[in-house]
Amino acid sequence: MSNQQPAVTFEEIRALLRNLPGPDLDSGTAALLRERQLTKPAGSLGRLEELAQWVATWQGQHPPDIRRPRVAVFAGNHGVAANGVSAYPQAVTAQMVANFQNGGAAVNQLCEAADADLRVYELDLENPTADFTKGPAMGEEECCRTMAYGMMAVEMGIQLLALGEMGIGNSTSAAALCLALFGGEAADWTGRGTGVDDEGLARKIAAVEAGLAANPEAKDDPLEALRRLGGYELAAIAGAILAARVARVPVLLDGFACTAAAAVLFKADRRALDHCVVAHRSVEPGHSRLLEAIGKEPLLDLGMRLGEGSGATLAINIVKSAVACHGGMATFADAGVSGREG
Amino acid sequence: MSNQQPAVTFEEIRALLRNLPGPDLDSGTAALLRERQLTKPAGSLGRLEELAQWVATWQGQHPPDIRRPRVAVFAGNHGVAANGVSAYPQAVTAQMVANFQNGGAAVNQLCEAADADLRVYELDLENPTADFTKGPAMGEEECCRTMAYGMMAVEMGIQLLALGEMGIGNSTSAAALCLALFGGEAADWTGRGTGVDDEGLARKIAAVEAGLAANPEAKDDPLEALRRLGGYELAAIAGAILAARVARVPVLLDGFACTAAAAVLFKADRRALDHCVVAHRSVEPGHSRLLEAIGKEPLLDLGMRLGEGSGATLAINIVKSAVACHGGMATFADAGVSGREG
Repeated sequence: MSNQQPAVTFEEIRALLRNLPGPDLDSGTAALLRERQLTKPAGSLGRLEELAQWVATWQGQHPPDIRRPRVAVFAGNHGVAANGVSAYPQAVTAQMVANFQNGGAAVNQLCEAADADLRVYELDLENPTADFTKGPAMGEEECCRTMAYGMMAVEMGIQLLALGEMGIGNSTSAAALCLALFGGEAADWTGRGTGVDDEGLARKIAAVEAGLAANPEAKDDPLEALRRLGGYELAAIAGAILAARVARVPVLLDGFACTAAAAVLFKADRRALDHCVVAHRSVEPGHSRLLEAIGKEPLLDLGMRLGEGSGATLAINIVKSAVACHGGMATFADAGVSGREG
Repeated sequence: MSNQQPAVTFEEIRALLRNLPGPDLDSGTAALLRERQLTKPAGSLGRLEELAQWVATWQGQHPPDIRRPRVAVFAGNHGVAANGVSAYPQAVTAQMVANFQNGGAAVNQLCEAADADLRVYELDLENPTADFTKGPAMGEEECCRTMAYGMMAVEMGIQLLALGEMGIGNSTSAAALCLALFGGEAADWTGRGTGVDDEGLARKIAAVEAGLAANPEAKDDPLEALRRLGGYELAAIAGAILAARVARVPVLLDGFACTAAAAVLFKADRRALDHCVVAHRSVEPGHSRLLEAIGKEPLLDLGMRLGEGSGATLAINIVKSAVACHGGMATFADAGVSGREG
C-alpha cells in the first residue's frame, strides 16, 4: 500500500473494493497437482490440503511459504460501553494493551507457541468512539483514516496475517454491525461477550436496538454501518484485510468482533474475504450465525471466546502444518510407494 | 513398566487394568485455581483451559510441562487384507514404514511442525496376523507379547504421547473390533478407509460379518475381541495406552483404528481412557459412532482420514498452546488488570 495515499473517503475505499486482486489460479493449480502425487490417499489430509492450496492461491506462489506469520491486534474504546454492556470497566482495554506489551496475555503465549510476530496497535484509547445509541460512532473521515491505519499493519515480507481485537464493549458493536448488515433481531446477534449476566444481556440488546434506531442509514451501506456502529479496532481490521489482499497475504480471522469487521467487506463485495479463513468458531452465539451469513467454515471449534486474536493465533500452527505437509512430503514415485490397486 | 516382566497372559493385563492409577486431583486443582487468576474472563479459553488441567491431572504435576512430546506409530499387517478390503496392496505397509524412516510421510512433517520426536515400530510385517474371517487373528500369548512391546514405547521422560498406526486392512479390523465391543450392524462401523469403491466396501462389510461369525467369543470379552479381530499395531497401541497411564503420560489418540484399539481398554474398564484425549474426528464414519460410545469429544475436525498418527500429531501444538497459556499468562493481580464489575 506504500505507493498510495491513505484513503480518506468512502469513495476511495469503494474503488479499492472494485479492484481487488483475484486468486492466482496458476499457483493454486500447481498446489493441487503436487497434492495428488504425495504419499497418502487422495483427500486424506482433508482441510490441510485445502489450506495449502489456499495459501498458494492467495500468496500467488508455489510452493506456499509461511515462515513469517504476523499477528496484529487492534485495540479501541467504544462510547457504547457507557450503557453498561460489558462485565468489565473500559479501563481494561488499556490495561490489556499493557498486558500484551508485557507479554502476559494469552495471545503472547500463543504467538510464542506459533513462532509468530505480535504487533499491538492502540487506537486513541483515551478517546472512545461516540456512543452509537445516540448517533454515528465515527465520522466518515475518522473511519477512513482508521481503516488506512489498519492497512499500514500489512508490512512487506509478512506471509500470513492473523487478526485480533481488544475493546471493552465491542461485542455490542459487532452485534449492531451484524444486525445492520444481515438483518434479523437484535437478540439474534447479541450474546454474553466477556460474561454479562441476564440484566447486562438485556442492556446489550437494548443498546443494539437503539443503535439501529439512531442510525437507520447503517442498513443501506456496509461502510456506513461500519462508521455508524463499528469502532476504531473494527475499522482498522477491515483496512488490514483489504491491504492484505492487495499485498497477497492470506488472512486468519478470529472470533465474533473480528469476523463482524470482515463482514463489512463481504457485504460490499462477496469476493472480498476469499483470501481469509476463519480460524475458529467462538461460543458467542452471533458468531455461528455470522459464519453462515458469510459462508465460512471455521478451522477450530474449541469453545473459546477471548478475542485478542487468540483463536487466529492458535490456528497458525494448523496452517503451518498444512504447508509443511504440502512442501515436505515425498511423492509416490520418489518414495517407491505403490498406488491404488485395480 | 521397567520393574515388571512383560505381561504374557490376559490375566496379567486384567490385573494391570484393575490397578490403574487414578487422577492426581491435587495437581488438577492447582491448575484450576491458577486458571481462575489469569488475565481473561473465566472460561474464555474454552478447551485450552480443560487441556491444561487435563495434562496437570494426568502428569501428576503442576505446572504441566510438555516440552518433550513423543509420537509413536505402530505398523502391522493383517491377514484379513487377503479379502480385498483395501484400495492398496499389503506391500504399502512396509513401503510407508520406509517412507516414515526417510522423512517423507505426512507424520514426519507434522512432527517437525510440532517439534515432536517420532518413533516408528514395525511389528513383523512379513508375517501378518491370521485372517480373522477364518478364526482368531492372534493367539493369547502373541497378543499379550505385542501389547507388552507397545508398553515399551513409553520411555522415561516422555511428557505427552501421540499414538498412530499404519496397516493395510486395519480399518476392517477396527470395524470388526467395534462391532464386537459395542454391537450394531457391520455396516454401521465399516467405511471406505483409504478409499475403496462400492464393491470394496461390500467386501469389507462381508469380512467384518465373517469375522464375528468365526469368532463369537469376541463379543464376550474385550481382550478376546482384540486378539481375535485386532492386529499387531492395535494390540501395541492398547499396551502403550496402559503403560502411559502407569507412567503418568497423557495420551493423544488418532483416528478410527487407533481409537478402536483404545476402546478395548474402555470396554474393560470405563476409567481406562481418562488420561487420553481424542485428537481429531476422522471422516471414517465409524469414528463418530465410536467417539459417542466411549464418550470422547475430539479436539479437531478437519476432514482427515490418513491415520499414521497424523491427527494426533497435529493436535500436539494445540496442547502445547494450552499449556503455554496456563503457564505463561499473567494473573489479574500481577498485570494490574481490573476484574469484573459489580
